[in-house]
Amino acid sequence: MQTIALKKITIIAEALLEKNLVRDIKAAGATGYTITTARGEGSRGVRASDWEGGNIKLEVLVSEKVAHSILEQISGQYFEDYAVIAYLENVEVVRGEKYLRT
Amino acid sequence: MQTIALKKITIIAEALLEKNLVRDIKAAGATGYTITTARGEGSRGVRASDWEGGNIKLEVLVSEKVAHSILEQISGQYFEDYAVIAYLENVEVVRGEKYLRT
Amino acid sequence: MQTIALKKITIIAEALLEKNLVRDIKAAGATGYTITTARGEGSRGVRASDWEGGNIKLEVLVSEKVAHSILEQISGQYFEDYAVIAYLENVEVVRGEKYLRT
Repeated sequence: MQTIALKKITIIAEALLEKNLVRDIKAAGATGYTITTARGEGSRGVRASDWEGGNIKLEVLVSEKVAHSILEQISGQYFEDYAVIAYLENVEVVRGEKYLRT
Repeated sequence: MQTIALKKITIIAEALLEKNLVRDIKAAGATGYTITTARGEGSRGVRASDWEGGNIKLEVLVSEKVAHSILEQISGQYFEDYAVIAYLENVEVVRGEKYLRT
Repeated sequence: MQTIALKKITIIAEALLEKNLVRDIKAAGATGYTITTARGEGSRGVRASDWEGGNIKLEVLVSEKVAHSILEQISGQYFEDYAVIAYLENVEVVRGEKYLRT
């Protein structure tokens, strides 16, 4: 089975940021994304249940270059004012070429 | 803490495929699986909310050999007709020997 | 984009263990966590839907040292009596220093 090495970005944030985050990751070159509903407690000691709507966990498969664009953007725009978590993992994607913007 | 290196397969698909996917991964040698409900937008530009039932995110811990059997099977059977995403990650599993089919 | 290499621990367990697991991971040094609701079938052949409340998937970003403390604790306390899954992954975390206990 042929796979392509890509980066998976996971962003955990307040649900109210969903629309903006989706806009930002697409602008940076993501071709798709997956969202699950989450809750939790962050390093700031604020429970997600204290916010209306809880948390979302947004996952995106992208090239390393797009991954870094997304993280620069998210970090600059949201980290100061919101309890956002963002991290990168290495993944091997089946038919991964469709996640590479041409 | 002793751990065993395994592969984690993640499959994101329409919820209506759940029963078939579970059957297929078990037939290929998976001993268990975890499902979370998801939504999103794929490289085909179709939102999951356009399908009845949304998406599922199915995760399976398996040996590398079983991982490749599962990906061959899923890829051959669903990738042509459905918006399926499948990828592999390396994980270190506590008491991971129980995920290895004897 | 500067990132810090950390470990992500994922613990999948019966929902009734949530309070205890959160207490344990904090005691071991975790500064936050994320929970999603899950279901599935384990190597013991028990479906999560057979338990009241289903499963939770708890994710924690920690240093390697804290990761091993958590896994020792979880393994010793729950693996005998409960259908718990625990595994480690390598992640690159944006502004990851806040997950390191000082």
